[in-house]
Amino acid sequence: MRAAVHRAVEELLAEEVGDGLTIPAVAARAGVHATTLYRRWGSVGELLADVATSRFSGDVVVPDTGSLRGDLQRWAADVATDLADPDVLALMRATLGAGGEQGACACRGDREDQLAAMIEREKARGGTAPTVERTADALLGPLYYRAIFTGEPGSPDWARGLVDLLLPG
Amino acid sequence: MRAAVHRAVEELLAEEVGDGLTIPAVAARAGVHATTLYRRWGSVGELLADVATSRFSGDVVVPDTGSLRGDLQRWAADVATDLADPDVLALMRATLGAGGEQGACACRGDREDQLAAMIEREKARGGTAPTVERTADALLGPLYYRAIFTGEPGSPDWARGLVDLLLPG
Repeated sequence: MRAAVHRAVEELLAEEVGDGLTIPAVAARAGVHATTLYRRWGSVGELLADVATSRFSGDVVVPDTGSLRGDLQRWAADVATDLADPDVLALMRATLGAGGEQGACACRGDREDQLAAMIEREKARGGTAPTVERTADALLGPLYYRAIFTGEPGSPDWARGLVDLLLPG
Repeated sequence: MRAAVHRAVEELLAEEVGDGLTIPAVAARAGVHATTLYRRWGSVGELLADVATSRFSGDVVVPDTGSLRGDLQRWAADVATDLADPDVLALMRATLGAGGEQGACACRGDREDQLAAMIEREKARGGTAPTVERTADALLGPLYYRAIFTGEPGSPDWARGLVDLLLPG
């Protein structure tokens, strides 16, 4: 049932229904009762936050290139590619609009956890690494800013360049 | 009339009407005919984009401290303070949700133009400066990312620290 509902949300977003993304519309598309959806998710905002959490968790694989620089470069390029997908932007905008703070946080998925994993691995190798917070500011900050606010998502090459600014030398 | 309509939007957002932010609701609050609003703005998304453009243009003064570092530090701290305002976040989330790409760009207001003005002034003084693009990535990126996506807007001190990472030495 959850998979059918998530698919219905993604289909309706792709059709640019805008304000028409309501629980009854999702229920009709998914072929389930609206009351079932209200019982499980409460509101379209909570439903969107759930879809966003699924979409942005595990969608980018944590690379293992042997160096923090290489890992972050590949990861940043993959996130840039993901954020350039119009369907991803439509999901993020709808979730930001209807999902409140919970929805907004869902749009990050597990990406800060992924940064933490790469940083921990570098430290386990005996290397030095910036904090997760600093790395999120330097990479996720511009990646999300460009995608959401400028209408011109950054390219994979630009994203790799952000890593060189974070880790000079 | 425009001022009354903008005020009505801000009041309704402060009351957390959520999906209730519609053209008829704004018209009723502002005391004007809904048809007038439809004729002028077309949709609630375009109206929100107009409100956001007003709100985020000229709201932060371009400082003139005598150095690019000082200017950017004061400016970043002011933007951080602005983005920590719950009313500002509510306006941004609603505009991102309903306003499409136009609304998203409106949430930046004239902030990149302000960065360009500070950078140009530094060059006129004979100094060197990063590009506007690089400066937006390093400052607006994390400022907007934290405010919108983490639920924990950065502090003014943190924002000043971003400038030191952008302009080392």
